Parts: sequence; structure tokens; C-alpha cells
Amino acid sequence: MKHIVVLGGGFGGLAFTQRFRHERVKITLVDQTNHHLFQPLLYQVATAGLTMPDVSEPLRSVFSGRPDVSCRMDRVTAIDLKQRLVRLENGVLEYDYLVIAMGAVTGYFGNPEWESHAVGLKSLRDAMEIRRRVLTAFEHAETEEDPERAKVLKTIVVIGGGPSGVEMAGALAELAYRVFRKDFRNINPADARIILIHSRDRVLNYFPDPLPQRALKSLERLGVEVMLESRVEDIGQEQVTVGGQVIRAGTIVWTAGVVANPVTQTLGTPLDKRGRIEVEPDASLPGYPEVFALGDICSLSDAAGQQVPGVAPAATQMGKHVAELILQDVAAGKIRASEDRPAFTYLDKGTMATIGRSKAVAFAGRWKLSGLMAWLAWLAVHLMFLIGFRNRVSVLFHWIYSYTNYRSGARIIVDLENKK
Amino acid sequence: MKHIVVLGGGFGGLAFTQRFRHERVKITLVDQTNHHLFQPLLYQVATAGLTMPDVSEPLRSVFSGRPDVSCRMDRVTAIDLKQRLVRLENGVLEYDYLVIAMGAVTGYFGNPEWESHAVGLKSLRDAMEIRRRVLTAFEHAETEEDPERAKVLKTIVVIGGGPSGVEMAGALAELAYRVFRKDFRNINPADARIILIHSRDRVLNYFPDPLPQRALKSLERLGVEVMLESRVEDIGQEQVTVGGQVIRAGTIVWTAGVVANPVTQTLGTPLDKRGRIEVEPDASLPGYPEVFALGDICSLSDAAGQQVPGVAPAATQMGKHVAELILQDVAAGKIRASEDRPAFTYLDKGTMATIGRSKAVAFAGRWKLSGLMAWLAWLAVHLMFLIGFRNRVSVLFHWIYSYTNYRSGARIIVDLENKK
Repeated sequence: MKHIVVLGGGFGGLAFTQRFRHERVKITLVDQTNHHLFQPLLYQVATAGLTMPDVSEPLRSVFSGRPDVSCRMDRVTAIDLKQRLVRLENGVLEYDYLVIAMGAVTGYFGNPEWESHAVGLKSLRDAMEIRRRVLTAFEHAETEEDPERAKVLKTIVVIGGGPSGVEMAGALAELAYRVFRKDFRNINPADARIILIHSRDRVLNYFPDPLPQRALKSLERLGVEVMLESRVEDIGQEQVTVGGQVIRAGTIVWTAGVVANPVTQTLGTPLDKRGRIEVEPDASLPGYPEVFALGDICSLSDAAGQQVPGVAPAATQMGKHVAELILQDVAAGKIRASEDRPAFTYLDKGTMATIGRSKAVAFAGRWKLSGLMAWLAWLAVHLMFLIGFRNRVSVLFHWIYSYTNYRSGARIIVDLENKK
Repeated sequence: MKHIVVLGGGFGGLAFTQRFRHERVKITLVDQTNHHLFQPLLYQVATAGLTMPDVSEPLRSVFSGRPDVSCRMDRVTAIDLKQRLVRLENGVLEYDYLVIAMGAVTGYFGNPEWESHAVGLKSLRDAMEIRRRVLTAFEHAETEEDPERAKVLKTIVVIGGGPSGVEMAGALAELAYRVFRKDFRNINPADARIILIHSRDRVLNYFPDPLPQRALKSLERLGVEVMLESRVEDIGQEQVTVGGQVIRAGTIVWTAGVVANPVTQTLGTPLDKRGRIEVEPDASLPGYPEVFALGDICSLSDAAGQQVPGVAPAATQMGKHVAELILQDVAAGKIRASEDRPAFTYLDKGTMATIGRSKAVAFAGRWKLSGLMAWLAWLAVHLMFLIGFRNRVSVLFHWIYSYTNYRSGARIIVDLENKK
């Protein structure tokens, strides 16, 4: 019985495990959480539109019909390629094939001290922390007697103008200007400021013209102040320094950068400058054809010479590709050399970002879309790829409810950090 | 403009504020959280059947159509009856009328050191902590090599055989024996033990015969080990001592006792031995006819000489009663003496408890019900009294889903305590 160890239950690890099935192979899927997280909707958890279970599904539940798959909740501490084993906090796993799909973590450009002031957006815990900070800041602003202090509490800075930052800023603006306006009495939430800081000269900079301009217009119409060509110089307690100017803000959200999961440091194979594993064209590790890396933990230029982007569809496609390769290996009865295997080719099916309640921008090849139609496409695609029937129904219900009511259902502050 | 301060957004405070409305009176509703919590379904959050937002509703949202009501999220530190003011962590409120509806907190019979080992069930945070402990213990049991240790991890002790303890034990048994059985590979969750410890000679001891016996039978059929006439002598790290015997358990849940919110200590008026405020027949405080206490923070024997029980319907009825009294005062243009006001009379509309997926026991006066019919009645009543349209739809959907699938949708571990 061959044993495949899959590290990470994100898009890549999930796609691999769903595709790979062979009666003489068992799979162990390791993740430090007990669930798959649908990251593209995480910002809606942060802005109180969706609940935690809406965007996540227990891995055991995904694979409950697969007796060949064992799920294990544990943390990977090191990978020993030479001895073919993975060290976990609570044990060791030996493997015949290894699939590394542990993704990225928030990176602060070498300023780890920024982390406590500016929350990233990679996990459910991050999303709940952003939600707690925003809701608590507005609650405190309601009774704050010092108007200057109240202004600070009602200011939210989002750093990074990629899809995550743009979607986050749009959702925060709707929360502050539409949902909170009904909720608060003593303050005028319209005093709230949502500031989006981006280092480039346009948001969504890898989207083709005129989509960045349309996204900018949509953001500004929602009330977001967009600062372009602005580089963050420092982040401290409730303040961001940008271009020498200090902005005071009750909540600071960081979407400006990610780095590969630090476990890559234990491999001893070449990494790129963001810590990602440099893989062969077939996605295997140089010198270790039985080990693969996929998703945004790896760095790969595909057959066309294009760098494969760190997005969910790429991870999913790589997961399926690697599953096919190993199935071919198993059929051939041997671990083939990397050069004897087909190279991975990324098929770009398009990219989209939503801006608030009924606007989005999307493109696929030369095909571009913006406005309501793009938003409907965004809804359909996200519902389609969200895992689990229960989640789809629940998310659809939440969306219909908040679209028609201008309310978001999950505005509950639960301070799980500071035990009373 | 008169000013009424309401402390607490539970059943009592909510019912008062919903009933009381007068154009010359404004209300400030203070709660330490930002939401009303539907406590009767809290155990379903703890056992992963419902999500946090399902059982709670932001107070601002409940009163968004009431410009006369201001909500304030703050913690009450002291009440000064003589000066007619309430001290908060972030400010002071003066009042003309005060309604104290701050409820009860978990009490450990004078053993505060038990708190860190045995989780109570009064807040969303408690429910999330129980959920996290149970799910994590079973995850660890899956990879535990020492069979003795695995047994401990899969043992859950529930202390207290009142409605909360019975409902909790029943839901945990279904989680362990039905939901987990599909989920786990290496362990047999049927090895799990759910132990219910109760000091009396029957569970639900204030329910009339034969309901306690039927409840006991239903619990045992679900696989719960019920220990009657057993008093907990000590609780430590993963262990409970009862009758000299030490039971080792990965999760310990405490539903055996509550005491009044400790703010009652700052009043200087008579309290009963559980710290509850002793009130006059109209629910006002002795010597302070402008101050009322209601719900399970007060101790009141009604006109019939019956002690009003600390249950949600009693708090709701008292809230409405006090609203009427103050409206009469306002109409009369004066604060009437307690003896000039009608006494509160509790109307017992019945009591119910559910045991697992399709069993319940209920009684109202001489009318008794058990089994499926009682369970359907339980469903209807809980849906009816749950606040918020969104919550009702979402809860109903979750119930239908888990009833038909034997799955619970919220089995997500989020460790918000230990920041990684």
C-alpha cells in the first residue's frame, strides 16, 4: 500500500485529494485547522456579512465518503526530504509521495512588529479579529466625548490595492455608510473614513484598462478615499505613516503582501525571494520527483514562460495535474523522472473582484466586464465553487437578505481573546 | 424629558424596552455585549449545530426603528441608588427610572478555581470554548497512540441535570455517536463516553412524574451515562471527583449553578443567599420605587406565594409588567409608592426540555407531553420566540439540514485564544 501525504487542505490540497483515488494508495491529509477555508469570501466574514461556518467546511466532512483518506489536524514543523518523512507537532509521517500545498502567510515586508497593529486576512481568526476591531471601535465612538478621538475610532485604513484590499475597502464602506447608519444614534457614521493605501498608480494593477479606472470610480462612489502611489513607511498603535504623513485609525487591515509558509525553510531546496519553493515544470521539487509543491507555496513558470499566479484556480489546476501525474506513476509502477512527465500549463479562466453590493470588474483574456453584470457573474462563480451544499444555501440566503435589507446578519462582537 | 436606564439586553431588558414607549421618555439600554443572546439555544452553538449569529441579534438592530432608544455597549461597575446614577467603565449615566436586568453568571458553589477546568454555559464565548474543547479533544484522540489517553480525550462530563445539562448531554451524545462516527477513521467514536452527573435522585427534578423518568430513558438510549445522587467534590485539570471516585475527562461542562450578577453587591439593599436582589411585590427595590429588578437577578415571591423561577418567560413577563407600571407612573405624573402599584403575577405557560434529535418533555399545569410531539412543540416555541427574521430562517434551515443529514454544519475549530 503506497502512502501519499498531502500537506494543506486549501484549494490545491483539496483538488488533489478529490481527484486522486487508487485502490492501492492511501492518503493522509494534514492541516493545522480542521477545515477547508474558502478564502475568496473571507473578507465578508470580516465585514460581518457571512458567518465562519459559511465559508469553511470540516475536512473530515468533505472526505467522509472516502475511506482511503485520513484527515489529521496537526502542525507541520519540518519536512525531511532525504528520509522521506514529515515531522508534525504530535508525530511523524512517512510517505511515498508528498504534496506540499500549505499556501502563504501574511508578510509585512520584513517588519514583523507591524503585525500586532495591522491585521492580515488569511484565516478565520484574522477575519474575526477585524470584525471585532471595527465593531468595537464604532461602539466606543458612539459614547466617546472627545471628537478627535471619535474620528480616529471611525477611521479604517486598508493597506494594499489588489483584489483583497479593494473588496475589503468596498465592503467596509458599505458597512459604515449603509448598515451602521441605521444602527447608531449619537454618531453619524457618515463621518467614518475608509482609506485605501496602494503603492502603484492604480488599484487592481494587473487588471487590463479600463477596469482599474472603473474599480477606482466605484470605490470613490462608495466613499472610499483611495491613496495611490503611496508607500507605507511605518505602522504603529492605531497609526500608519505614509509619505511622511501620519494617519490615525482605529482599525488597520493589511492586504499588501504574503510570503510562503515558513516551513519551506526546512527543505533545503531552492526558494525564490518570497520563500516559495522553485519547482520543475511538472511541479515536482528539483532532485525529488516524489515530492510536489503546488499553489502559492511554489514558484513555477509554465510552458508558456508565464509565472503561475498565486490564485485559487491555479492551485486547483495544479492539484489536479499532480494527481494525474502520480496516477500515471502508479500505473507505470515507478517514480518517473521529472523530465519524463508532462509540464503543468495554467489555463487562465479569468479574474474578478467585487466592489460593494452590486459592482464588480472581471476579465478573461480579451473579454472584459464591469458593473452589475460582472457582479452577477462574480456571485455565480463564487457560489459554484464554494464547497458544501449547506454553505451554498446559507451564503445565498445571507446575500439575498443583506442585499434587500442593507443589513448584515453577523454583527456580533465576541471577544474571545480577553477572557473576562 | 425623563430618562430610563435599562441594564441588560437579555429577555427582561428586551421585553421592557420593546413594551415601553412614551414620547416624553428616552431609554438608554446598556449591555456589556452588542447583542441579545437567545440563551435557550446556546447549547446548540456549543455542540456545533448552530452558528453564533443564529442565536444572537445586535441590540442596535432590534431597536433601529426606535429613535427614543439608545444602545450602549459598556460594563456596569457600580450602581449608586442614592445619587441615582450608574457607573460604567467608560462613563456615568443618570436616571429617573432604573431597570436592572443583568441576569446571572455561572457559579461554582464557592470554588472559583473550578472555572478554568469546567466551562459554564452562559455566553457565546462559553459555547465556543466548549465547541473548541470537544472538537479538539476528538481530533487529538484520532492520532493518540496511548489508548488510555485516547479514552480520556473522548470522555465528556456534564455536571448538572437540569434542563441545560440534559439538553447539553443529549446533544453531545448525538454529536459523538452519530456525527463523529461518519467523520473519524482511526478511532471509533462509539468508544466515547458522555457522563451526566446530577446531585438529585432524578434529572429535571422539578418536572412532574413521569417526565423525569422518560427523560432519563431517552438520555440512556442516546448513550449518556447518568449518575444520580452524585455530588461533585472536586474539579481539577481534566478530572472530576465524585463520591470519592476520580473521573478523567477531556472536556468538562458545568451547568450546575448560577449566581446573580455580582453588580448586586454594590447596591446596599437586601440580597438572598445566591446574591439576588430581594424586590417588593411590584418588582421595585425596597425604599427605591424608581428602581426595578427583573429576571434571574431578582428574588420575588409572587402574589400566590410562589417564588418566580429564573427562566426566560418569567423575565419577559416581568419586563412587560414593569413597563406598564412606569407608563402608569408617567401618566400619573409621579413616582408612586410600591404598595400603590399592582403586584407582579407570574403566569406559568409551561416548561420544556429537549433530549436529542426528536425527543422532548414538556408540561404546562396538569398537561404533560413527551416524545416526538413534545419535540415538535419545542421546535415551534423556540422558533417563535427567537428574535429576528433572519435568525429564524437560518435556524430552521440548520435544523432541517442536520435532521435529515445527521450532520451539524458548524464543526469548525477556531482557536481564538492562543494567537499563533
